[in-house]
Amino acid sequence: MKLASARLAIEGISHSVDGGRFAAKVVTGQPDLFQADVFSDGHDIIAAALLWRRTGEERFDEVPMVFLINDRWQASHVFDQPGDHQIAFAAWRDLFATWRKEISAKHAAGQSIALELTEGRQLIETALGSRGRANTKDKAALKALLKQDDALAKEGDAERFAALTGPDVAELMTRAAPRTDLTQSEILPLHVDRPAAAFSAWYELMPRSQSGSMERHGTFDDVIARLPYIRDLGFDVLYFPPIHPIGRTNRKGPNNSLTAGLDDPGSPYAIGSQDGGHDAIHPELGNFDDFRRLIHAAHDHGLEIALDFAIQCSPDHPWIKEHPEWFDWRPDGSIKFAENPPKKYEDIVNVHFYRDALPGLWYALRDVVLFWVNHGVRIFRVDNPHTKPFPFWEWMIAEVRRVDPGVIFLAEAFTRPKVMKRLAKVGFSQSYSYFTWRNHKAEITDYLTELTQTDSRLVMRPNFFVNTPDINPRFLQSSGRPGFRTRLALAATLGGNYGIYNGYEICEAAPVPGKEEYLDSEKYQLRVWDMDQPGNIQDDIRLMNRLRRDHPALQQFTDLTFHTARNDQVLAYAKRAGDDFVLIHVNLDPHNVQTFQFEVPLWEFGLPDDASIEVRDLIQGNSFTWHGKNQTLELDPDTRPYAIWQLIAPGAPRP
Amino acid sequence: MKLASARLAIEGISHSVDGGRFAAKVVTGQPDLFQADVFSDGHDIIAAALLWRRTGEERFDEVPMVFLINDRWQASHVFDQPGDHQIAFAAWRDLFATWRKEISAKHAAGQSIALELTEGRQLIETALGSRGRANTKDKAALKALLKQDDALAKEGDAERFAALTGPDVAELMTRAAPRTDLTQSEILPLHVDRPAAAFSAWYELMPRSQSGSMERHGTFDDVIARLPYIRDLGFDVLYFPPIHPIGRTNRKGPNNSLTAGLDDPGSPYAIGSQDGGHDAIHPELGNFDDFRRLIHAAHDHGLEIALDFAIQCSPDHPWIKEHPEWFDWRPDGSIKFAENPPKKYEDIVNVHFYRDALPGLWYALRDVVLFWVNHGVRIFRVDNPHTKPFPFWEWMIAEVRRVDPGVIFLAEAFTRPKVMKRLAKVGFSQSYSYFTWRNHKAEITDYLTELTQTDSRLVMRPNFFVNTPDINPRFLQSSGRPGFRTRLALAATLGGNYGIYNGYEICEAAPVPGKEEYLDSEKYQLRVWDMDQPGNIQDDIRLMNRLRRDHPALQQFTDLTFHTARNDQVLAYAKRAGDDFVLIHVNLDPHNVQTFQFEVPLWEFGLPDDASIEVRDLIQGNSFTWHGKNQTLELDPDTRPYAIWQLIAPGAPRP
Repeated sequence: MKLASARLAIEGISHSVDGGRFAAKVVTGQPDLFQADVFSDGHDIIAAALLWRRTGEERFDEVPMVFLINDRWQASHVFDQPGDHQIAFAAWRDLFATWRKEISAKHAAGQSIALELTEGRQLIETALGSRGRANTKDKAALKALLKQDDALAKEGDAERFAALTGPDVAELMTRAAPRTDLTQSEILPLHVDRPAAAFSAWYELMPRSQSGSMERHGTFDDVIARLPYIRDLGFDVLYFPPIHPIGRTNRKGPNNSLTAGLDDPGSPYAIGSQDGGHDAIHPELGNFDDFRRLIHAAHDHGLEIALDFAIQCSPDHPWIKEHPEWFDWRPDGSIKFAENPPKKYEDIVNVHFYRDALPGLWYALRDVVLFWVNHGVRIFRVDNPHTKPFPFWEWMIAEVRRVDPGVIFLAEAFTRPKVMKRLAKVGFSQSYSYFTWRNHKAEITDYLTELTQTDSRLVMRPNFFVNTPDINPRFLQSSGRPGFRTRLALAATLGGNYGIYNGYEICEAAPVPGKEEYLDSEKYQLRVWDMDQPGNIQDDIRLMNRLRRDHPALQQFTDLTFHTARNDQVLAYAKRAGDDFVLIHVNLDPHNVQTFQFEVPLWEFGLPDDASIEVRDLIQGNSFTWHGKNQTLELDPDTRPYAIWQLIAPGAPRP
Repeated sequence: MKLASARLAIEGISHSVDGGRFAAKVVTGQPDLFQADVFSDGHDIIAAALLWRRTGEERFDEVPMVFLINDRWQASHVFDQPGDHQIAFAAWRDLFATWRKEISAKHAAGQSIALELTEGRQLIETALGSRGRANTKDKAALKALLKQDDALAKEGDAERFAALTGPDVAELMTRAAPRTDLTQSEILPLHVDRPAAAFSAWYELMPRSQSGSMERHGTFDDVIARLPYIRDLGFDVLYFPPIHPIGRTNRKGPNNSLTAGLDDPGSPYAIGSQDGGHDAIHPELGNFDDFRRLIHAAHDHGLEIALDFAIQCSPDHPWIKEHPEWFDWRPDGSIKFAENPPKKYEDIVNVHFYRDALPGLWYALRDVVLFWVNHGVRIFRVDNPHTKPFPFWEWMIAEVRRVDPGVIFLAEAFTRPKVMKRLAKVGFSQSYSYFTWRNHKAEITDYLTELTQTDSRLVMRPNFFVNTPDINPRFLQSSGRPGFRTRLALAATLGGNYGIYNGYEICEAAPVPGKEEYLDSEKYQLRVWDMDQPGNIQDDIRLMNRLRRDHPALQQFTDLTFHTARNDQVLAYAKRAGDDFVLIHVNLDPHNVQTFQFEVPLWEFGLPDDASIEVRDLIQGNSFTWHGKNQTLELDPDTRPYAIWQLIAPGAPRP
């Protein structure tokens, strides 16, 4: 061991993920609080700073840290560029501050300070010396200080003390003095993403179902015609399942049947045909000109297109002939289909990532993503990433980020918790989560507490989808319209990212009997949708997306607090960002009126339990006053399944 | 990034301290459970192992891990040699086990398995090949297996299936098959200590007070005469404050007064005089022959001597003249005394660890410790380590351990929690703790939960001292004899390590008025003790030390569970090691009888709430049966301030 290394302790770093093995994630434009335990032996005064730089840069920028409590220090910083960064912490003993504290104590106790004054001068002289950090102006100031001290010698120690211990001198010495026992922490990686990685509202549809007719396969132009509707609902991201050519061999028919008719379109997840593979467009949707037009039109509507990245291939994918070494082959020379014995999936085959597929397949897959990045797509929803190797994702995502640090990957990994979290660690920007199956008060509270309060918050950004083409949640199958409204409100207000799959707005819930699958799923056939039909919940969706845009509290994920509502069917929670404080009550019971007492979190504003606070009903728009902590409310699933309030801090400008 | 590295994830390692920056601690002879989250992509069967070696060795030994739940794996291992070790974890995909699972599912579903059988053969052939791990015997077995499979070909697939999927084949292939995607975790340091680091009972006395007369300075021979008494009480470690020559300059008088009479012995913490420094013995105690005799006599009584390592020097310490560069000097040429402005400590000066003191002072201090190690001392209580640099301790303790890995260091760092914990991280074997000031039910529960359940348990082994020469706890100043008995019981049963400072057994509690200091403290004067005086609690001490020796449950620290006692003045907790289950009730109120309902933790034995369980009263010695979970007890501070029970698992041999 090297003697005398790292005299100060820097530990318990807030943004350390597995000891720096993985990067924590932040977004540009939002202040992040970086904390560490910093301390030294003994009782000297110390100072600390956050260091940060873009990966590859030599020099660190520095943000001073402030002491909080119990040896915890904090710095706040806003990053302004997406991309890979590095952070570290530095700490040192501040001899001048220590001297100032000690001489002040002695002076106050009436003890002699003559020697101490000389020692203070020595510290100033050291700051002027070769180890000092003074710039030209600081040096002049330090010299003037010594000269002034010489002049004051005839007046007395009290005068010298006053001159040497002023706040301006302290500030000057903080800048100019050498940093004694300077200690630096390990360097940690930090991913800085663009804001959409943490805050976005997704709408999912199948382009082929957008023609308005069962007789005609939808096209990108049909999607363009739908953009005003989607934009009017207030979404940011429009996501399509795969748009590539669909295999013919063993094509699936309606409702996942094993035989497809000649006109059945097949599952878009059986990627690849004689028309091409992952870098081709299914001919019936349009061509690359059409796609380009769609990208631009979406952009003009304030929408961003997200594509699916699903690695499996149909048996007709060109890669199988071009690169047999990327696939598994049976002893009889046949290709190995996807399977989960004894279940078989005969319309798809999986690639093999190792042996002779390495590195050719890895490069090819990366290049597929970069191909679409080149075509203007910067968000990818990744199908089943948990069945592909973690090292592949870590490498591939880093490669893509090197080209464009603004690319966002959403992991569709409905698997075990640690596997899901690992994918977030290796680089996925967002994760589908278990939200879709968390319906009760206790399970929502527990799950959101885990996501927002444990170290999960450093890496995993959930995207709360209320439904997907694969998940027709059992809760919604029996909840009716009120359940659709409450699940929407929960997703939109609890999640930084959330999404719906089309049909949700008209409360579509017809299942394959006994399953969580949609009947007549678009995965296997065309559909025609009438989103304006009676009972639709477009108003709720518009409201949610408007509130999300208007309220910084709803634009972040982790500052979430659950509050008391004395009813097991009612969830109460608040989100806060600066002055913006939003309190939400949701009736989780879609069938019964729930009346409940709740607590107004007056203590969050430093108010006593009997205080009054101004509150704005963000649904109705009216304002009024709550008097006292305990209030009562009734939520009727049919007319008012949820309530959203803004609490106005006393003295704050009225919104 | 390297492609394809580390396909499996190994994370959440149970013995990782700050990502491997520091070593976790275990002791020889006790099984430790090593856990990690281990998983891969996809659904293949995986296997994992704990790897361990002594630091410096090339080869790892291997312990197979078993799957627990939720991707958590565990291996149990008992280390048999103290010293620095390294551990790591390995994991790999088990292709043969996966094949066995899949072919079995297909066979059970009546599907054809002809191709699968061929694939199984291929795996066996691979195990026989150059990448296989088969020894000569395994190879013969594998060849025989293939031959048998050839022979079975004419009988049919079912017969071949049965022969290739037997448990013996699985076991053979586990040994012989290559480890696919073998992944190794980072290597972590692990300190293996001798058992006394984690389990010991300390008795502290001042040798100079052992003459039995105020007229005569005690000697090592006087201490030898006390050994039978201390051993009879059941202690393992006998600890002395510093035994070195005491300075004369600014020597402290009785009760810490600023002027000492000519006969006042001074504080033993003002180390160093013309008679020598840290490697000398205070002449009035004896010489090195006497000391050697004491060490041997203690050993013959089953006691180990612990010395104090206090770095500060009296102004008369020889080092000051020999090594002025190890000290701080004022501008007027005077030495800088220890101080905490405006308080001054004029009988001691502190060394300076950096500048010109590095490395000379570091070597000298290490050599002081090694000097006493050479004289047979292997336990050191270190005075105020938190005012000396962490890097010094980390280096020094490692240096000493290289010479003798059995040396134990106890940190006397009554300072902030993170500083205390850091000292444990840098290598201290034991820590004084806040136990002395944790008196109430909630604060004891919270503190012990932190110590036993958080990652503190990996590094910090508290030594629960009920009192010290510096701490005359306020609780004991007013508790009377019952308080001394309960605090003893708490320390001895909650702590792996615990200790008392002499006088405790006669309930000595006379304070300097208003302070936590003892009146007429031995720190500044001689004392004469009569430990057999009426009201002594020697019986309690003997009982505690006997129970600790008899019960494995009390020989470990972390397997502690608090149980329900429906009275805020009564603490109920249990410790368990294997079959040994000890339940303890302590009346924390030294003034009033407390009656309470408590729960018998029947569920710990898999018993229903209305079951009966045999119980032994470990104080009275009698056995009886508790019927049902809810029981009532009365604890009278004067006659029975605590109760200790052994619960006998149904079917276990009666003790």
